[in-house]
Amino acid sequence: IAINNDPAITELFEDLHYADIAEVLDELDFDESIYIIKLLDSEKTSEILTELDEDTREKILENLSAKEIAREIGEMDTDDAADIIGELSEERQRNVISALKDEEHAADIKELLSYDDNSAGALMGKELVKVYETWTVAGCMRRIRAQAKEVSRVHSIYVVDKQDKLIGRLSLKDLIVAKNEQKISEIYIDKVDAVNVNEDDEEVAKIMSKYDLEAIPVVDDNNVLLGRITIDDIVDVLKEEADKDYQLANGLTQDVEADDTVYELVKGRLPWLILGLFGSLGAVIIMQNFQTIMDNPDYKALFFFTPLIAAVAGNVGVQSSAIIVQGLANDLIKGSLWRRLLKEISISLINGFLLSIIIIVFTKILGFPISFSLAISISLMSVIIIASLIGTFVPIILDKRGIDPALATGPFITTSNDIFGILIYFSIAKIILGI
Amino acid sequence: IAINNDPAITELFEDLHYADIAEVLDELDFDESIYIIKLLDSEKTSEILTELDEDTREKILENLSAKEIAREIGEMDTDDAADIIGELSEERQRNVISALKDEEHAADIKELLSYDDNSAGALMGKELVKVYETWTVAGCMRRIRAQAKEVSRVHSIYVVDKQDKLIGRLSLKDLIVAKNEQKISEIYIDKVDAVNVNEDDEEVAKIMSKYDLEAIPVVDDNNVLLGRITIDDIVDVLKEEADKDYQLANGLTQDVEADDTVYELVKGRLPWLILGLFGSLGAVIIMQNFQTIMDNPDYKALFFFTPLIAAVAGNVGVQSSAIIVQGLANDLIKGSLWRRLLKEISISLINGFLLSIIIIVFTKILGFPISFSLAISISLMSVIIIASLIGTFVPIILDKRGIDPALATGPFITTSNDIFGILIYFSIAKIILGI
Repeated sequence: IAINNDPAITELFEDLHYADIAEVLDELDFDESIYIIKLLDSEKTSEILTELDEDTREKILENLSAKEIAREIGEMDTDDAADIIGELSEERQRNVISALKDEEHAADIKELLSYDDNSAGALMGKELVKVYETWTVAGCMRRIRAQAKEVSRVHSIYVVDKQDKLIGRLSLKDLIVAKNEQKISEIYIDKVDAVNVNEDDEEVAKIMSKYDLEAIPVVDDNNVLLGRITIDDIVDVLKEEADKDYQLANGLTQDVEADDTVYELVKGRLPWLILGLFGSLGAVIIMQNFQTIMDNPDYKALFFFTPLIAAVAGNVGVQSSAIIVQGLANDLIKGSLWRRLLKEISISLINGFLLSIIIIVFTKILGFPISFSLAISISLMSVIIIASLIGTFVPIILDKRGIDPALATGPFITTSNDIFGILIYFSIAKIILGI
Repeated sequence: IAINNDPAITELFEDLHYADIAEVLDELDFDESIYIIKLLDSEKTSEILTELDEDTREKILENLSAKEIAREIGEMDTDDAADIIGELSEERQRNVISALKDEEHAADIKELLSYDDNSAGALMGKELVKVYETWTVAGCMRRIRAQAKEVSRVHSIYVVDKQDKLIGRLSLKDLIVAKNEQKISEIYIDKVDAVNVNEDDEEVAKIMSKYDLEAIPVVDDNNVLLGRITIDDIVDVLKEEADKDYQLANGLTQDVEADDTVYELVKGRLPWLILGLFGSLGAVIIMQNFQTIMDNPDYKALFFFTPLIAAVAGNVGVQSSAIIVQGLANDLIKGSLWRRLLKEISISLINGFLLSIIIIVFTKILGFPISFSLAISISLMSVIIIASLIGTFVPIILDKRGIDPALATGPFITTSNDIFGILIYFSIAKIILGI
């Protein structure tokens, strides 16, 4: 690149897959990326643009004119095009759309932009093969040949009636196996799964992976066929969802990546650290209120165990909340809340009992009196029960109120369990030891 | 079901999708499930079996004879069949395979069972449409009609040479658009992605989602076409992988679900709790060694801050490790380790500085001397730096040694950071305060 050897670069990139080129560009200096993008033809660069990292793409698009962007967009499928235009400012969106040459393409993209983020409409593409039930197989094949040139991959052929309402589907295979003179109405399959255009994208992902679908048609409230969603978009939705839950469980505000800048990483990490700090400061105040215990030489060692109590409460809490959050995602949380309460208490009692045995043996070795060991064990059991109930029911309650239950994982649970755990620990120990 | 109204049940289930029936059966009593499975015809039940929860399926298969299982297996695609037979004991595997009527199907399943778990071979199916380069389009269509009846969905048509070596691909679309008398060798696309049969399944998932493929051919070391992997199997791999990482980060040994029994849930949760407990007991011993600080009325309050130090160290650690684990999964961890080290230290200094300000204000309000506040702040900064380095570099080191970096998330990081954090905290505080 340094010596501007254009033909060599063009040739080098000629044989590479666009996903690989995108990876190379993500690594390169910004000026070099722009240079390469302008060098390659728009059929290839449009594919590359869709594969780029969002940050890199934003920078590149900033340096292209509305006309240049429109040329790239013109080569894209409607769903990718709408995604990328959606990242621009509203003014640039208008400029790019009006610079599009193909008016139908422009109208399709405008329609897709009008749907809510995270809805089936935002995920769908307009490219599909549609046949009317009144056509014959031979006529159908002819028209499919024409339509198919526009569509990069033929997933399913959707059968509609005169009002464009979805009534069934057909696979290319069925069409090939059928006789030329048969009518579509004789051979189509009238069972077809479809989703409403306003359906939530996670719900669409669930449906498609449950029924192992590779594409699903999208319809409006009147069952009119509007577009289709393909499985590769669903793979992205599933990945995003899993990443989001993982980051929440680990105390990151969404969308932090290892190659982000220091500033972005601090911004992603600080909020939960501050929240956790305030929780721990609450624990400091609680301990101050119990500080007279320190004056008693027999019992001052209770303070050595506060990090242990906090750690166990935290671990139990995140385990419970993780099981619930995954269960909610997979629709496994059914049945009465009372049964779940009983189950959690049983698990806590068993785990608490086994951990207590270890603590009793350990404190015995260190030479603590047995009353002291018992006080710690009994408080620990109570802490485990409370911690697991918080971990279990806070996500369930959030979910019932329509809030993402994954919010109540990770630092949220460990922080609240720290405070409750230390409070319960000292209260119970005080009662048992009669201080 | 209670009144054994067979025709009504058959009719009821007739119209349901097998994935829905599987969900109903997962909920039903065991006897009722068996009863329904025996009632429905094997074309339907074979689909239901593949969709059932593993636990339910295991119980049902235990109650079917080898012959009955063979009848179900006979209706399945080879990849599903191999997965299910793989769950049986070795003896039953042999019995079921020898009871299969279709010998080719049996041989295919045997072959699939011979590949390593988590390899492309274990994931692939044998059903595919294969054409020789010497065929004409018309002849090809005729033979595809025959082959396609065996294959539930035609993804791609693979083109092979005389030695069955993969040389290209063809889409049904291309075939339809082509003229009858053309030869396959004139129209096929010679760029085809393929994976080796011994490739790791997560690697296959990465390739397919990177290139947005819906199916990928699987070849042996000589490039001979063996089978194909479809995107729906990849969706399952991705889901499993995400679930596993999530569970590890939350201190669960793999494969615990909300609807498991109390015994299974205890087994899934106890190991990390015990590990965490031993770590905390280590912290108890460290604090015992610093207990003389308690005799100093000015400084005994240092002990009120141990849960705070442990909590911050833990939170910082899981944040760092989560970013690294996700980065490794997405191939974002590139460049020199020194740069990463510098980045982590910068982030830690900024976060530490901001948290210290909060602590200084807080301790001022509570009336602690400024030397005390400074001691806590400076130790906290050191703890944050060490904690983030542990969180960052332990997963990187594990990954370099070929161990799953996700092992070093969650309780592992919080526990080790608790110990180091408290040790550093008291050591530094002691030096600063001159105790």
